Amino acid sequence: MPKIFKKSPLAPKSFPNLPKIDGIKLFSMHAGIRKNNKLDVMLILIPLGANVACVLTNSNTPSAPVNWCKNIRNHGRAKALIVNSGNANAHTGKFGVKTVKNTVKAITGIMNCTQKEVYVCSTGVIGEKLDSKIITRAVLKLINKKESLWQEIAESICTTDTFNKGAVSYFNLGGKKYKVLGIAKGSGMIYPNMATMLSFIFTDFPLSSKILRILFKNSVDISFNSITVDGDTSTSDTSLLFSVYDKNVDRPIVDLSDNRILKFKASLDKVLKDLAIQIVSDGEGAKKIITVHVKSAKTYKNAKIIALSIANSPLVKTAIAGEDPNWGRIVMAIGKSNVPIDQNLLSISICGKQVTKCGTLIKNYNERSVAKKMKKQEILIEVDLGLGKNEATIWTCDLTHDYVKINADYRS
Amino acid sequence: MPKIFKKSPLAPKSFPNLPKIDGIKLFSMHAGIRKNNKLDVMLILIPLGANVACVLTNSNTPSAPVNWCKNIRNHGRAKALIVNSGNANAHTGKFGVKTVKNTVKAITGIMNCTQKEVYVCSTGVIGEKLDSKIITRAVLKLINKKESLWQEIAESICTTDTFNKGAVSYFNLGGKKYKVLGIAKGSGMIYPNMATMLSFIFTDFPLSSKILRILFKNSVDISFNSITVDGDTSTSDTSLLFSVYDKNVDRPIVDLSDNRILKFKASLDKVLKDLAIQIVSDGEGAKKIITVHVKSAKTYKNAKIIALSIANSPLVKTAIAGEDPNWGRIVMAIGKSNVPIDQNLLSISICGKQVTKCGTLIKNYNERSVAKKMKKQEILIEVDLGLGKNEATIWTCDLTHDYVKINADYRS
Repeated sequence: MPKIFKKSPLAPKSFPNLPKIDGIKLFSMHAGIRKNNKLDVMLILIPLGANVACVLTNSNTPSAPVNWCKNIRNHGRAKALIVNSGNANAHTGKFGVKTVKNTVKAITGIMNCTQKEVYVCSTGVIGEKLDSKIITRAVLKLINKKESLWQEIAESICTTDTFNKGAVSYFNLGGKKYKVLGIAKGSGMIYPNMATMLSFIFTDFPLSSKILRILFKNSVDISFNSITVDGDTSTSDTSLLFSVYDKNVDRPIVDLSDNRILKFKASLDKVLKDLAIQIVSDGEGAKKIITVHVKSAKTYKNAKIIALSIANSPLVKTAIAGEDPNWGRIVMAIGKSNVPIDQNLLSISICGKQVTKCGTLIKNYNERSVAKKMKKQEILIEVDLGLGKNEATIWTCDLTHDYVKINADYRS
Repeated sequence: MPKIFKKSPLAPKSFPNLPKIDGIKLFSMHAGIRKNNKLDVMLILIPLGANVACVLTNSNTPSAPVNWCKNIRNHGRAKALIVNSGNANAHTGKFGVKTVKNTVKAITGIMNCTQKEVYVCSTGVIGEKLDSKIITRAVLKLINKKESLWQEIAESICTTDTFNKGAVSYFNLGGKKYKVLGIAKGSGMIYPNMATMLSFIFTDFPLSSKILRILFKNSVDISFNSITVDGDTSTSDTSLLFSVYDKNVDRPIVDLSDNRILKFKASLDKVLKDLAIQIVSDGEGAKKIITVHVKSAKTYKNAKIIALSIANSPLVKTAIAGEDPNWGRIVMAIGKSNVPIDQNLLSISICGKQVTKCGTLIKNYNERSVAKKMKKQEILIEVDLGLGKNEATIWTCDLTHDYVKINADYRS
């Protein structure tokens, strides 16, 4: 492994302890798509089925698997999820569509389910043909293997990731302890146009697919859709939320006004935000994680557009890589966002230190003390627009030499 | 000068031979804003006045000089242009406004003109106060100096530029030879939201300010507004087009249907395109110049949005820096642009070699031969959408280690 692919300095210390969920079987293997014997196919079976919600990339050049998921997601039920890494099966024309169909058939051939209950995802190089035989043969091998751990499942969906991403949250309700857990992958081509990476969330809390859809969209908006690495949107991004429960014991919640949803929602938000920040922490070449918080905006949308404009600016991101409090570039990024502002009301803080107030540099500004704060791994940029009561937070990473190294020298 | 600021490998061999234009006086000096005795203030006087058109940045955090130009430009007449480099006088509140006013007063104090006839531009660091005394003292010194050459004028407006930018074109009409010449600066924070750098164009062809405005906007759209370095938009960008002629000899053209305009327009387009490509060639860290040509689009706007999406993609730009024909990233960038397309009609060529056809890789694709072509300095990306008859061209540069070096390690 080249030195630049060493584990991100921003990675969590270890993969979390993810619990088993009854009714879910996990399999993974090296099928030969990636090099060096890496895990590259994973299969999750839910023999009794799950309710499911699915969020997909907004790309106008979606991969064949994304188109497949788009076609089946309104059905809202799932019994299998198969994912390969190393090849995105994107821009592969009819051949790619055929590969997805053969994959689905291989799975309906081994278990009692309809085609609409089989979710397929691929991630990796765009434009190379994915031979369906590799996948269909793998399916037959996988189901005869020993079951995998969540960490292996997380590993098998990675591409340029430098660490495996997982998160879990628990909540108690009616004397029972429920789980919400998730895995994710992503480190480049990350931009919030819907889900912008692969992520799969599982809960044993019983919810209808309609409720799942509403809650998931809302939660994705403030997590996966609030991160950016390079402003580039993948052709393959897919997020799935599965509710797996025993029909004979539990009845799913179908009413959005049901108070029991609140605890679940809090856990879901926590897991998604945790995974989103892990993805940014694994941003290609990232050395610092940047939180951009824009407040006092007229609308949430305005706050988010300005926060994204700052978070996507190459000049802001390189300044942070250089630990340079070049706040003029933040002013520039606010100005280019097309959101009307009043420059005379604008205030900016970096790492908790106020830099500008009401449209100009504060008196006694001490650049050296701000520069010192910027040596930390966590950088906080706060912008006060002075216009209203809405706010938004975006997470991103710095733009370093290693981003260029990884992307100029390596075919991802 | 640090090694990374060495002259761009894409620079023209030399500064062109720019002719004098009667009625224009050129002055430049080192006033002490920039280090190392660099020229940092230039003053152009047009004692008998000129008609003028002015295009400004779309930034919502414009500098004090941009606001000044915005206020006076409808007047359409100019007798002076003063420009400093090293300090943008942006986000400097009331202090910055006062500096512009004092600058204008200093000029109306030395020549017979109104405040509305004095154009002011500043470029450099955002947010630092610009002491008006530096400028007003410079004005008094400048008018007593020997007149400058165009090359010195071009040099005095530079910041991180690694070479001076000038261009000229001539045309004959009614037995007379007319001139269109221009200078420009810009190497980072370049993105087409109106003019995105400083550029000043002069002609001795007599045109009314109304005609100048229409022709200039149109010409800027296919030149300065068709280039991008990093997608970041400056707070300070200003383009001016002056028509300087002797009222006693010539009468300005006031009618857009006047055929004499055509030859002028061709020269204007040529000069602006030349300067625009020089700016991209001086893109921070640029080693390659990239032409993105999108054709067969339903509208010009659609073609331009897709071309910009490709030209602004960090993943595309790093792949080109690495001479890697990673065409999947071009597919990704097309997909993220929000313009509806039919993936099955899409064809892509790199450096004249067809790569994909009708939504998939061509048969017998030879990656090595495309990679070999990519070793050249000029990279051509052609996209055929197969949807209509409109096309657009965007110029950009690659994203290299030196971009990060320049912007992470240097306070511009």
